[in-house]
This record gives sequence, C-alpha cells and structure tokens, in this order.
Amino acid sequence: MQVSERRIVRVLNGETLTPPPLWLMRQAGRYLPEYRETRAAAGSFLDLCYNPELATEVTLQPIRRYGFDAAILFSDILVIPDALKRNVSFNVGHGPQMDPIDPEGIAKLSPEGVSAHLKPVIETVSRIRAALPHETTLLGFCGAPWTVATYMIAGKGTPDQAPARLFAYRYPEIFARLLDFLADVSADYLVEQIDAGADAVQIFDSWAGVLGEKEFEAYAARPVRRMIQSVRARRPQAKIIAFAKGAGLLLKDYRQKTDANAIGLDWSVPLSFAVELQKDGAVQGNLDPMRVVAGGASLDDGIDAILQALGQGPLIFNLGHGITPEANPDHVTQLVKRVRGL
Amino acid sequence: MQVSERRIVRVLNGETLTPPPLWLMRQAGRYLPEYRETRAAAGSFLDLCYNPELATEVTLQPIRRYGFDAAILFSDILVIPDALKRNVSFNVGHGPQMDPIDPEGIAKLSPEGVSAHLKPVIETVSRIRAALPHETTLLGFCGAPWTVATYMIAGKGTPDQAPARLFAYRYPEIFARLLDFLADVSADYLVEQIDAGADAVQIFDSWAGVLGEKEFEAYAARPVRRMIQSVRARRPQAKIIAFAKGAGLLLKDYRQKTDANAIGLDWSVPLSFAVELQKDGAVQGNLDPMRVVAGGASLDDGIDAILQALGQGPLIFNLGHGITPEANPDHVTQLVKRVRGL
Repeated sequence: MQVSERRIVRVLNGETLTPPPLWLMRQAGRYLPEYRETRAAAGSFLDLCYNPELATEVTLQPIRRYGFDAAILFSDILVIPDALKRNVSFNVGHGPQMDPIDPEGIAKLSPEGVSAHLKPVIETVSRIRAALPHETTLLGFCGAPWTVATYMIAGKGTPDQAPARLFAYRYPEIFARLLDFLADVSADYLVEQIDAGADAVQIFDSWAGVLGEKEFEAYAARPVRRMIQSVRARRPQAKIIAFAKGAGLLLKDYRQKTDANAIGLDWSVPLSFAVELQKDGAVQGNLDPMRVVAGGASLDDGIDAILQALGQGPLIFNLGHGITPEANPDHVTQLVKRVRGL
Repeated sequence: MQVSERRIVRVLNGETLTPPPLWLMRQAGRYLPEYRETRAAAGSFLDLCYNPELATEVTLQPIRRYGFDAAILFSDILVIPDALKRNVSFNVGHGPQMDPIDPEGIAKLSPEGVSAHLKPVIETVSRIRAALPHETTLLGFCGAPWTVATYMIAGKGTPDQAPARLFAYRYPEIFARLLDFLADVSADYLVEQIDAGADAVQIFDSWAGVLGEKEFEAYAARPVRRMIQSVRARRPQAKIIAFAKGAGLLLKDYRQKTDANAIGLDWSVPLSFAVELQKDGAVQGNLDPMRVVAGGASLDDGIDAILQALGQGPLIFNLGHGITPEANPDHVTQLVKRVRGL
C-alpha cells in the first residue's frame, strides 16, 4: 500500500469515498479513561507533549479503541511560543498562560533553538508512524499565526481575543512582523513533521472568527498562505487541511487564498454553504461536539444530516470542534458505526 | 416634531440619512468617569438597574457628553431571569451568575410577578423619555430567548455556551418550551417599554453565533419571530432592531424570518455582505470596539470603511459589540465627529 492509498490522503487528493474516512479533533483526550491514566503519570500537560513514549501512547489509544482513519499527533499549538521561551504553562481551570509579549519582545524573537526544543515532538511523530497500522493516516499540526499570536499577546485566552485585535490596530507593522515570524517557524516545524512521517498536516486557526473582513485577509488568510507556500516550496506534495474556526462567510475563498487541500468546518457552518465549499475540493467536519455528549437520536440526526449533505463529495468526517471531556466513549462507538454504516 | 421624525426612527422606516444617525452599544458604561461615579454610589449592578433615578442618570450621561442620536435604557438582558427568581448576581471578574435551571425548574416557570418585578425599569423608561432632548430616539431592549436561555441553563457564561446546546439536544421539547416562555414574557416586557416611551427596541441575541443552521432557525430565529409577532399584534407600529451576534451567513434571511425593521451587525460581518443585507432595509453597525480603544488612524479607517460601504443606504452607525471600559472618551469624540463629517 502506498501512502497515497491511505483513505484520508485519497480524500485530500479530491476523491469521494463511501463511507467517508473519519477522525475526531482532540480524539486523544480526557473523555478516554486510558488517556486520563497516562496523563496522570506524565506530570504536567507540557511534560506529556514532550515525552515521545507517552505522547505516542495517548496518540494510539483512540486508534486502538475505534480504528479511526487518522491518528493526530498528541501535542498543542502552544509548543511554538513555548519553544520561543514565552514561559508557557497549562493550569487546570485556567487554560493556557504565558508571558504577554510587547513590541520589544517581538523585535527580539529568534528562531534559534526552536527546532531543538521541538525535537521530542518530532521523535513522537516518528514513533507514532512506526507503531500505527499501515492504513492509518498520520496527521501533524500546528496553530495558525493569528491564533498563536493572540495567546502570545494576551498571555492567555480572552473573550474574542480583544487584546490581540487592539495590538494589531495599534502596531500594524510590528504585528505583521510577528505573524510572518510565526508563519516561518511554523512552516519549518510542519516540514519536520512531514519528514518524520506525517502524511498530512492541519493548521488550526481557532480564533479566526473574531476578525473583520480586511483583518481576516491580513492576519488569518495571508500568513496561512505564507506558511503553506513555504512548506510546499520544500515539500511540493504536502497535504494540508486549514481549519479557520468561526470564519463563516469568509471561508468562501479561503481554500483559494491559502492553497489548502481541505477546509475544516466548525459546527456553525451551514451545511447548505458547506456543499458550495465542497465543489472546490475536500471539506472536513462538522458535527457539534455536544451531540457526542448527548448521544441517542440527536447524535444520529447530526451525523445523518452531514452525510446526506456532504456524503456525495470529498468529505473527511469529523467534529466541528474538539471532543469534550464529558463525551461518553460509548457515544463515540455509536458515531463510528453510524458513519461507517454498520 | 413627530416621533417618526426622530432620525433613528426614520432610518428604521427605510430612509437613508446623511450623515447616518449613531449611537454605541453600552454607551452608558465604565469608560465614562461619570458612569463609574454613579455606579459606585448605587450598590450592586442590579441595584443600579432597578433604581429609576440613577438608571436615568447613567442613560443620559453619554447623551449630554456626545449628543448621540439615541439613548438606550440602562438595564441588562438578565433582568428577565432575575424577575423569574433565578437568583441572578453580577460579580466583578466573574460575570453574571444565577441558579442553573433544570427540566423541573422549567416546568415550574410562571410569568406571575415578572411585570411587577420589572416596574422600576419601566419607570426608568418614562423618566428617560421625559428628560431626553425631543429629537433623541429612546431605545428599549431585551435579550433574545436563546441568549437568555443559555445563561439560565449554564448559570453563567461558558465557552460557546456548550451547556445550553447540550440541553437542547437532550431535551428538545422542554427547551422549546423554555424558549417560547421567554419569548412571551419578553414580548410583554417590550410592549411595556414601548408604552412607557421607547421609540424602538433592540433584541440582543449575543450567543446566536454558536448554533448550527437548523438550530439557529429553531432556537434563535423562530423565538425572535414569535416575540416580534406578539409585540406587533399589540403595537403594530413597533420598530425593532434584531442583533444576532456571530450569526454570519445565517443573517442572509434573518430580517425576513424575524420581521425585524433593522439588522444589527457585529464587527466580523464582512462589509461586502452587509451591503447585500442593506438592500432589504436598515442595518446597524459594525465598528470593532477595539478600534475605539486604539484611536488614531485605525479608528478613522474603520469608520471610513463603514461609511463608504453602507453610507448610501439606510444605516444606523454603531459598534459591532459593546464599547469596552478601556475606551478613551476622547476617542468617542473623535468617532462622533468623524461620522458626522465635522
């Protein structure tokens, strides 16, 4: 079997598969008892991200349990600011925190040491690939420059990431420099993931939805295009999924603008609009994760609506956002069976 | 001067005015030193909402300072759950909190006592109207059923209001009953505001953006239509602005679906799309409040872009979300002058 025969890679190449391949964002996560056990043994959340043995283990857990079509590297979008020495920590109940960066801090940012810092993550990619069933796609990922920048500026998550919007209005040129810098180090990181065995990579722009039209172009779409161009200049065959959460109508030409192979859709994207986006290539999504918590008929109905609207074109079935800790693992079994028509 | 000659009422009737009338969401707020002074004297936030003298005072403060075309009643969308005895409180740094409601609690909800509880707010409306310059429009408001329900179910604000989405999937009929109940008591409340002197009312659906297509129709658009129909059955000339924050593409037929006179636009709504929405009637919005914090060229640029795109049709100039405590009052002066071409 060639890499290009893996089902998710085939869809990324534009093929329609029935049933569609599936994986779930945050599938290696707290809803799984085996994850919670490994997590407890690992120390901090970042310790787990940088422990190739344990990060490989948690990446494989949902594959063993559900046989998803893709495994996704266990890591976090904030390993990049961590590698940039921004003093990142994850505190239970408080979300991620780091030192807020200012214009002087941005001027001092250097890519030196980033690759060395992220070596354990790259080793994890190699280990996962070696351990995965051959037919399973391995996905790498990183955060989009805008989303990573919002955390670097605020030092944490904030309502609608207002501090980063304000910073961008106050210091447009310095902010553009930060985005370009992040695009470049992130592109290097994605190339390393691909070289270590990732079949495809996903770029998470989790805060794309808080931007106006011009700002979306300047801060979200443009830096993602820069990243993708940088990756493709070195790895022309790279397969890339771009997920701009909350971007709504601005997704209309996001694929063209970024040159991504597939567009990730959050659960608020109307299926009637998703059908239009699918005419240009693969889409991924977009079940409301709360339906997996609810289970029963509401889970079946949500799945059926997506399959009916998008099943006749290139589709990677997924949630519209990460699965939550409250999800019942049996509901995931129900989901997998339903999508596969079993 | 007739009520119908007030500038905002004229735009709600479909007229194009140059310069467009303007007001700012949360214009009576913490960015104003005079507000902070009155607020400190009032006791709790809810004490201020229920104090006709002080609520009138803070409503009038921004009118005195800036001469906005509309005053908006100083109150909160959560006075409805407060009137329903849900034990509402506003704690600095924690946002609003109340007792989370369950299916049994929903079955027990009664409109009895709601009108009596809200009498001080209605008295505030009368007092504001008596004190306002005759040419100034007075806006009443309430929350949309979906948004109010999200707080009632979670007992607080939560990321993407997941608890309410989950509740709706688990108990669709009970949830529909809650929305209908809220639509009915809110419609009564709006009629009382109109009778006390509100020229128009705004319905805030602040959490409309976390819903899928079918759910937006069922939980956001349908209950708002029910409210508006109920108000219009009694006050056929009622003027209504519907603001569904984050609804994006789903705004396309929101005016038709709800029968609102004007559609409020958050700052993420692309201006190219706003132009389309304006072909059917008045729109209101949509400057990013962070531009008011930033001031300078970024404020001017944001204003000019809106005036250029939407100034040739019926427009009420506003922010795309409430003004924030960090906004500099001088930047608001800059905004008012710029919009009015002074």
